[in-house]
Amino acid sequence: MNYPSKLIEEAVLEISKLPGIGKKSALRLALHLLKSDKSQTQNLTEALSNLREKTTYCKTCHNISDQEICNICGSHRRDQSIIAVVQDTRDVLAIENTSQYSGQYHVLGGIISPMMGIGPNDLNIDSLISRIEQNPEVKEIILALSPTMEGDTTAFYLQKRLRDFPLKISTIARGIPIGGDLEYTDEITLGRSILSRIDF
Amino acid sequence: MNYPSKLIEEAVLEISKLPGIGKKSALRLALHLLKSDKSQTQNLTEALSNLREKTTYCKTCHNISDQEICNICGSHRRDQSIIAVVQDTRDVLAIENTSQYSGQYHVLGGIISPMMGIGPNDLNIDSLISRIEQNPEVKEIILALSPTMEGDTTAFYLQKRLRDFPLKISTIARGIPIGGDLEYTDEITLGRSILSRIDF
Repeated sequence: MNYPSKLIEEAVLEISKLPGIGKKSALRLALHLLKSDKSQTQNLTEALSNLREKTTYCKTCHNISDQEICNICGSHRRDQSIIAVVQDTRDVLAIENTSQYSGQYHVLGGIISPMMGIGPNDLNIDSLISRIEQNPEVKEIILALSPTMEGDTTAFYLQKRLRDFPLKISTIARGIPIGGDLEYTDEITLGRSILSRIDF
Repeated sequence: MNYPSKLIEEAVLEISKLPGIGKKSALRLALHLLKSDKSQTQNLTEALSNLREKTTYCKTCHNISDQEICNICGSHRRDQSIIAVVQDTRDVLAIENTSQYSGQYHVLGGIISPMMGIGPNDLNIDSLISRIEQNPEVKEIILALSPTMEGDTTAFYLQKRLRDFPLKISTIARGIPIGGDLEYTDEITLGRSILSRIDF
């Protein structure tokens, strides 16, 4: 496409590097910023720069945090004996939103994916091991990873690394989603949910 | 939602002010920037700042332009006798992509919309009138506006302002899109396309 100016061409190029945003949406966003108040663009670019330059991570769980130790790791109210291992910050937010979990977290910062060139050493796995070694009060590890090929691979790897510790290792339940329709559930989920049926 | 840090909260707030981006997508974009190289965020924020601070508009047609007079208005190859009136830059790009038009443009910078508080004085209408007055070679005005309530209102207003000039005023054809299925065309479009049928 022939853009009417170099400035808009560069803006569209940079915006469309973001995941899920194509050239057309990028152009729409760029024209929106051009039409709206200058302060909106200033606030946006400042927020993004600050985010990228100043964000720090909790030394214990590797979640994004303003302090050295995040609110969850530093809280006396949270159960110290249980750690949910998750892929990233979004999963922490998703689990926190359920209000059903009061334990700790450990953010891996990704998932083992040979396709993307991400191996175990790229993830916060060693720090999980030393965290367990240093905290004998930890009794259970929940592998709260997505039920995908990569998630299962990561879960198997973690289970292998953790099996010599006196720990209970669990995984979040898989089955038919609540409100889901039996008829429209895929065969694998439905098959597994029959095999791993639970007492009523 | 309780964000793990103030920085990410502010970034999500600012990103989600963009049209069509909700809080969840904004969080995904923010986390993407956090994971990718610092230069990506720098390039993005620079491109956006430059766009907003330095963008200039063509003095003749009000399209975005690096020069005082844009490439289209300044070109000897383009037909000077015909002006397509469009809502914004995206419409210029869309029409240019068809390679079917070789005339001039006039970018209104919006559309008359009482709901959004946009009246004729907020648009580049006066400059269109003086452009026609100063260029007697202009013979035709194409009202290339979207066939919506606001587009039709704007077209009627322009037609009233322009009717005393010795001009042909036309509008882009409305009808069934090429490749469209008669059966699934809405009644209004189909009805109009019968009323305004053309010779085969």
